[in-house]
Amino acid sequence: MARWAPDAAGRLQTAALELYAERGFEQTTVADIAARAGVTARTYFRHFIDKREVLFSGQSELQAFLAEWIETQVGPDDPMTRVIAGLEAAAAHFPDKTELSVKRSAIIASNAELRERELQKLASLAAVIAEALGRSGIDPAAARIVGEVGMMVFKLGYERWIGGDHTSFAATIRSTFDDLRTAMRGEGQAAARQSAGFA
Amino acid sequence: MARWAPDAAGRLQTAALELYAERGFEQTTVADIAARAGVTARTYFRHFIDKREVLFSGQSELQAFLAEWIETQVGPDDPMTRVIAGLEAAAAHFPDKTELSVKRSAIIASNAELRERELQKLASLAAVIAEALGRSGIDPAAARIVGEVGMMVFKLGYERWIGGDHTSFAATIRSTFDDLRTAMRGEGQAAARQSAGFA
Repeated sequence: MARWAPDAAGRLQTAALELYAERGFEQTTVADIAARAGVTARTYFRHFIDKREVLFSGQSELQAFLAEWIETQVGPDDPMTRVIAGLEAAAAHFPDKTELSVKRSAIIASNAELRERELQKLASLAAVIAEALGRSGIDPAAARIVGEVGMMVFKLGYERWIGGDHTSFAATIRSTFDDLRTAMRGEGQAAARQSAGFA
Repeated sequence: MARWAPDAAGRLQTAALELYAERGFEQTTVADIAARAGVTARTYFRHFIDKREVLFSGQSELQAFLAEWIETQVGPDDPMTRVIAGLEAAAAHFPDKTELSVKRSAIIASNAELRERELQKLASLAAVIAEALGRSGIDPAAARIVGEVGMMVFKLGYERWIGGDHTSFAATIRSTFDDLRTAMRGEGQAAARQSAGFA
């Protein structure tokens, strides 16, 4: 509708991903990103606090969605089941996987500062889950564990999805959780080990 | 034996912990730490690459111990059981909990840069476990999951131990893993929730 910078944030994200993929993260400046998106650097900093943050938008929405889900959904009383269901619901709202979202993961993996920011975001996701469970009356030690497991399933499920699994993100969250349950039971791995040629 | 700086690394660690606790991490310089330990800044940098690293010594020994354990121990074929047993064995070699080790956790928690470094160290612990399992013939996807669980149990077990649990570090690793298993089975939490006053 507006002729001046409709969806500036979205265009800045696309421009940043393109430039980071083309030139590398270190070699790209905020001025470069703003120029490609057709806005000023000042507009960039209205949306993102630094060069890293443009790759992590949507995190606060994800956290708010999950906290709300955990505290309000009628449904399973067991916190682990509730959190995994919330992650699957959140995953169903994720944008489709595109060439750019695949590039995003490679860009993050290639830079230590970006990997640090990603680890921070994941740690805060674990904390948000644990706090929401705590507000629902779950014992803090159990809430802490379920928060960490939820974060881990989200992280590994995302990796599977971006890494080429052809199902949906919600489906890779589910398959990761199922594999975690199998690993916790100590089943299946001895067989996998033998099939890999180990006696 | 030597009169010139026996155990310089250990004295630098103690000096750093004391100064970080007294003045704060930001307000302490490498020169301050070296002076208190009675060595030069040059000696400091022979042992630690920066101001943060002095708080994380022993990590490479831990990783080497675990990798060796995973690859060579005769014993349970199930990777999760093997990794948790390795973590318990590693924990038994940890230095005793002291006032200074409790302070260390508070110092890290109070500073964003230090929290980042800690997250990096934990991520590399997960990777080391997964790689050692991979070399033992475990399927990579299962190895990745067990690596993440091992890292999480180590992290939460350490928190419990430092946080005032009066058993040993090995015992808090075991109790954390037992609680994780309970949470994965979806047992116990509904009861905990009710006892907290929720219907």
